[in-house]
Parts: sequence; C-alpha cells; structure tokens
Amino acid sequence: MKAVRVHELAGPQNLVLDTIPVPAIADDEVLVRVRAAAMNHRDIFITQGLYPQIRLPVTLGSDGAGEVAAIGSRVSGVAEGDRVVIDPMLGWGDDPRVWDAQAANILGMPHDGTFAQYVAVPAANVYPKPHALSMEDAAAIPLAGLTAYRATFTRGGLKPDETILITGIGGGVQTFVLLFAKHVGARAIVTSSSDAKLERAKALGADVALNYAATPEWHKALRADGPIDLVVDSTGGETLGKALEAVRPGGRIAVYGRTTGDATLKLFSLFWKHVTILGTSMGSPWDFRAMLELFEQGLRPVVDRVYPMADAATAAQRLADAEQFGKIVLRIE
Amino acid sequence: MKAVRVHELAGPQNLVLDTIPVPAIADDEVLVRVRAAAMNHRDIFITQGLYPQIRLPVTLGSDGAGEVAAIGSRVSGVAEGDRVVIDPMLGWGDDPRVWDAQAANILGMPHDGTFAQYVAVPAANVYPKPHALSMEDAAAIPLAGLTAYRATFTRGGLKPDETILITGIGGGVQTFVLLFAKHVGARAIVTSSSDAKLERAKALGADVALNYAATPEWHKALRADGPIDLVVDSTGGETLGKALEAVRPGGRIAVYGRTTGDATLKLFSLFWKHVTILGTSMGSPWDFRAMLELFEQGLRPVVDRVYPMADAATAAQRLADAEQFGKIVLRIE
Repeated sequence: MKAVRVHELAGPQNLVLDTIPVPAIADDEVLVRVRAAAMNHRDIFITQGLYPQIRLPVTLGSDGAGEVAAIGSRVSGVAEGDRVVIDPMLGWGDDPRVWDAQAANILGMPHDGTFAQYVAVPAANVYPKPHALSMEDAAAIPLAGLTAYRATFTRGGLKPDETILITGIGGGVQTFVLLFAKHVGARAIVTSSSDAKLERAKALGADVALNYAATPEWHKALRADGPIDLVVDSTGGETLGKALEAVRPGGRIAVYGRTTGDATLKLFSLFWKHVTILGTSMGSPWDFRAMLELFEQGLRPVVDRVYPMADAATAAQRLADAEQFGKIVLRIE
Repeated sequence: MKAVRVHELAGPQNLVLDTIPVPAIADDEVLVRVRAAAMNHRDIFITQGLYPQIRLPVTLGSDGAGEVAAIGSRVSGVAEGDRVVIDPMLGWGDDPRVWDAQAANILGMPHDGTFAQYVAVPAANVYPKPHALSMEDAAAIPLAGLTAYRATFTRGGLKPDETILITGIGGGVQTFVLLFAKHVGARAIVTSSSDAKLERAKALGADVALNYAATPEWHKALRADGPIDLVVDSTGGETLGKALEAVRPGGRIAVYGRTTGDATLKLFSLFWKHVTILGTSMGSPWDFRAMLELFEQGLRPVVDRVYPMADAATAAQRLADAEQFGKIVLRIE
C-alpha cells in the first residue's frame, strides 16, 4: 500500500511516499481503508524532532476517515464496509477527567497513522462518520475537533449566554472552537495578526475580530467590550499573561498549547480575580462522542485545502508556515 | 475607646495605641464590643504601604470576636449581648463563584477594624460564635479560616480519599488548611524550611513533613510518595512551578498568594497533565457559614500566642518575621 512516511528528522519537506505492506490487525483492532486524512501541527513537530521518543521510520497522520476493511476476531459492533471516522486518542483509560498518563498516546507515532491507504486501529476508536459529511470533511475533524471540544466545553464549561475569547484564530483547533461557540449561541471574540483570517472568522460568525499586531494592548482594549467569561489559548507566553488581564473576575482560561513558549503569570490577577486556568490536551472517548454529535446537528468543519496524498510535503509546508485557515486535508486514493 | 492605629506607612513597629470615639453605626450595622482580635499579613502589608489606596489614619484588624453592644434600626435577627464572630469579607455580592469586584473589600482598611474596643460592621457579617470556643479562639478564625476553607473545599474540591500538599506550613491560612484536611480525613503533606514547624504540623496530623530547604528537589522526592491530588499554595514563584511538577495528572492547585513573587509556569506540564489552577482570595458568606460549621463539630484553631492590645507592635513584628505557628491573637480589654 502507499503511505506517507518519515525516515529522518529533517522537517516537513522530507515526507516520503513509500510502498509498504498493509498492516496486520490484532484481535481487538479493525483495518480501515483510509479515504481522507488531515494534517496537524503534531505531524510537523514530529518531522522536526520536537517530540520525545520518536521512532523511525513511521507513517504519520492522526486524523482519518474511511471504510472498515477487516475486523479482528474479538471485535463486535463494527462491520466491514462501515463508513467511519477515527478517534486518534489511544489508551485514554477509564477516567473522564484525565487520561491514563502511562498508557495514553496518539495515533500516528509510534503507531503508524492515517497518511496511508490502510491503518490498523482499536475497534473502540472508530465511530460512524457523521451522515451529512463527506470523507474529506469527516477526516478534518478528529484531533482538532476533539481538542477544541474538551477545551471549550468539558474543561472550559462554555455556556450559551457567555462570551469566549479565541486567541490566534486560523489554526485547526481554534477554528473548531469558534464553530462550536457559535453553534451553542455564545458570543465570540477572535484575535489574529492577519486581517484576512479575521475576515474569515467574521464570516464564520465571530462577533468581534481584533488584530493583535495592530493593537498590542488588545487585552486592555477588549475590557471596554464587556466581560470575557472564557479564553481558549494555545499561544502561551505573553498572550497568556494578557489573557489573564483580559478575562473577567471569576472567569476561566483553557490552555492546550504553548506555541510562543512558557508564561510568566501575574499571580495577583489570578487569585484576586478568582480566575481558573484549565490545562487540557486531546480529549476522552466521551468528549469524542459528544463532539461528533454536533456534526450530526448540521455543523461542518472548515477545510482549508485538499491535497492529493503525493503532495503531502507541500501540504505540510503550508501548515508549517501557518498560511491555512481551518484544516488541511489529504485525499487518499 | 482604645484602638490600635496606623498613622504613617513605616512598618509594624509604628502601630499606635490611640484613644478615639466609639464608632457610630448605620441602620444596617451592629456595634461589636471586641474581646479578641487576630493578626494577618494583610495588617503588616498595610503598615508597609503594600496595598493600593491606603487611607490614614486607620484602625487595623480584620479578625474579631465579641458581644453585640448596639444594633442599627433596620437590623433583625441579632440582639444585644449576642456573642459573635465577624466575617471580615465586606460586599462579596450575590454570586458564590466570585466576589463583586467593584464592591468587595476587607474589614480593617478602609473601614476601621477590630483592633479596638468597638467596631461597627454590617449585621450580615456577624455570626454566632462557635459554642465550644473561647473568644480568643474564635477571633483566630475569620480571615485565615475563610481563605483556607475556600481554597481547600469550594475551589480546591478536596475529598476525604485524596492527598493534599500544603506548601510552607506555619502561617495562619496554611495551618487551617492542614486542620481542615485532616478533619475530613484526607492525607496531608506539608513543607517548611523549619524543622520545628514541621514537628508542630506532624503533631496536628500531617502524614508527611518535608524540609524544602534540606531537599531542594522536594517536588521530585514527593513523586515517589504517591499521587498528590491538590496543592494549596500562597508562595508563588519557584514553589508554584515545582508544585505544577509535583501534582498528579488531573490534579488541582489552589493559589491565594504570591509571597515570593510571580511564577513562570511550564505550560507543557499544565496541559499535558490536564492540571487545573484555581485562583482564590478570601471567601463568600456561604463559605464562611460552612467553615464555622467545622468548628461546631469540635475543631479548634491553632493559636500561636496571645498578646495584650498594648503589645500590638510586638505581635505584628513576630508575624512579620514569620516566627509564628498558627494565629497571633490580641486580647482586647
């Protein structure tokens, strides 16, 4: 079968289209004939050697949708031909509050991932594809949608009458956060350094869109704009410090990344304002199921571009350059 | 009446015993004949000019217990002669989750406080003194007990089968946290740089007592000792960073102070471990009522020393030097 693989830690340009054997499946696994996959920053970081314990060569890819092609001997409730979307969170465990830190890992390293014609995954990790969505739309959802759902609802507790601040709109997760927030009726404020991305966000329903490069004191500017109940951030650094100033007394900040580095926080603001900071990463099986339900209600993910599998390196470079708005999808033929 | 007052921002040695008029009460207030008061770091910080908008001269003191001496014309449910303890949290508001940031303030600046023979307070802020406690014990409770209760339970959510880490035992609030944690049956780990304080904490039920000065890598040492569900910290700085490393995946950290400064946090640990950081300060009327209930169940506060009112400056210096274990009380005669 064809698979997009990493052989050396030399950046996204070194993704290689290989021909390798179709994977064998264990008793509790299914084999999925992948029809579409989607890229995540995780894939880029792996090509750059930014993850611990990288094992090479490996087939990348956490996100995928396709049809069940074979089922393990102990699998029930799944049939060959089922059209499915894959939950990339492996080994979460039994506690909805937190993953099993020993067992948890993510599809697409060390387990061979979805950038291949076939992928072997635990049967518990395949869910019926939302009916109204194409394979490409469905493949755009899993990792980013799951992370966004948990940050926004399970951890962030967003309610319909609240205001959410989404820092740095345009990436996969933050775009899902915006979709989800508007879907439940919340008021959404977005920031970006790109006016083009801010326009896209407005078209998706963002109520306020602010260019943080043009307004470095955005955290003060936003205070005049009404209370912010929840911030969802993956920037870290100075942005997280400003978010702490911007959020209302009693407000929450959900944090799932640190693209600009660690943060020095003014603790006085934290305790005097009774703020809650919620670390979150990926999501549980319960989160995944609840998240898919939103897509049965008519929601559609934002797909930036669809590339053929052979152009994976080009697609990855677009993501590495942060040029996308929404998800970058690979068509697996 | 006699009152301990601040006339200039020159440190705790400059507390002065004045004679001033007995305060008038508003329609919704009661006048309390104070029998005992207790000191807090807040009082020291005010003498040092470390609070914003200090108005001088002022009678210090947030904690007090005594008898109701007069009641305002619109007050019901309180009678002259009632033995009461005072909730120093003024103007919390209607939301149990967070105070009204515009209205909230603390008794003892700008409002004249409890280091006086009489204090005027809103009738809603006096509660029946726990029956088994002396006036001196009751006076030791309010600000520190309230802060500790909210940090431990309302925000921290401590459960009987959990383990709590209390960083820097010895201060008023942390000593209450230890009392409360052991009262509900939780396992308690304490740290201090003083072996004497660690011994005192063990006598109060601490299960593990670790000298952080002798073991600078205490956060790693504690990992071998089983999972830590909740940390309660008011140190900030490096200690908070280490607490984030020490707490279990899915654990919580309640923060109510920053005595060593702001903190630079490793955000990867925050989100990868799904940790929750809970800022908290003082507590609501509902917290205060629930906290007092623990003292009806037989709990007693830890009183370090009792000083006569005339020795307030000496008492304050002991607190400023962090020599105390538990609360420093003033007898108001």
